[in-house]
Amino acid sequence: MPRGRPRDASRDEALRAAALSVLADVGYRALTMDAVAATARAGKATIYRRWDSKLDLVIDSCNQLVSRSIPAPNTGSLAGDLREFLLAFATFLSGPAGKAAQALVGELPHEQELADAFRKSFLRSQRDVLRGVLERAAARGELTEDAPQAMVVELAGAALTYRLMLTGDPLDAEFVDTLVDRILVPLLVGAV
Amino acid sequence: MPRGRPRDASRDEALRAAALSVLADVGYRALTMDAVAATARAGKATIYRRWDSKLDLVIDSCNQLVSRSIPAPNTGSLAGDLREFLLAFATFLSGPAGKAAQALVGELPHEQELADAFRKSFLRSQRDVLRGVLERAAARGELTEDAPQAMVVELAGAALTYRLMLTGDPLDAEFVDTLVDRILVPLLVGAV
Repeated sequence: MPRGRPRDASRDEALRAAALSVLADVGYRALTMDAVAATARAGKATIYRRWDSKLDLVIDSCNQLVSRSIPAPNTGSLAGDLREFLLAFATFLSGPAGKAAQALVGELPHEQELADAFRKSFLRSQRDVLRGVLERAAARGELTEDAPQAMVVELAGAALTYRLMLTGDPLDAEFVDTLVDRILVPLLVGAV
Repeated sequence: MPRGRPRDASRDEALRAAALSVLADVGYRALTMDAVAATARAGKATIYRRWDSKLDLVIDSCNQLVSRSIPAPNTGSLAGDLREFLLAFATFLSGPAGKAAQALVGELPHEQELADAFRKSFLRSQRDVLRGVLERAAARGELTEDAPQAMVVELAGAALTYRLMLTGDPLDAEFVDTLVDRILVPLLVGAV
């Protein structure tokens, strides 16, 4: 997390972009602050004034990228919110970020600190967005009382991840529509 | 795939076990036939008489392990079959095989041949088992006519993979029960 000193937002952005570029090239384990500094044509001290460690820098850079690429939806309907969010996520994962995400997840078994941080920040923030979608739908009276909300939230993330990392099948609008209209919404509104 | 010559099944098993052991230690990219031969105290020629390549050996070893660890279910009911199969799979992934599976999947982005073979053999065979479960349930009249069968099969695999590789949450009986009773069966029989 950025800290200390008056901040230069565009400088932070350039450093985050450099971190993501190095991450995509060599992976988390082999990423060094020296390589990030060289890529950003910055001094290492400049990086350390903003982030405590390589872990902080990588997680903050990923979170910023995701929150900018995948805004929280608020369309006024459950199906609309789920479709907008999951389509943005699917599009994001279909691009270069998908390859980086896949490589990062591949490193989690060997990088316990990274795994913990990834779960506490990245996964949790995605889960929180989906929980917000479901809470608003519940307030509008769209959800059946005993809807399996936690499991539906988990499945939404699982479905995207599985295509990205295992099957390689397309993360496209047809897939998102089927997931939303045939699976997620029916489970939540109590009508299959 | 094993080929040629009269076969010695226990010798094949020892070689597969050695391949899985080396795979777990160093990963797919760094696995060599020399290391497998040394681990099995066998000659490299012995391995090549049975498998064409490192890719063949690894995929065949994984498939044999999975088909032995996770038998195809046939309990006579949809919920029973899904529970038995997914619980066996969850138990399998919770053990040492889970770590190896995770490492292997982490290598797929950089190993196109491995990715193709993994999808054509391992993923397809799991999908075929689940399709068989659904076909038998349909023949017994358990499924609603327009059940989203393909997506349900995909979600079953996705749910296990996501816990194993991303959230790290337990792959236990409670999880399998919720998945089967609150998600998969309702979607298939048309009652949420």
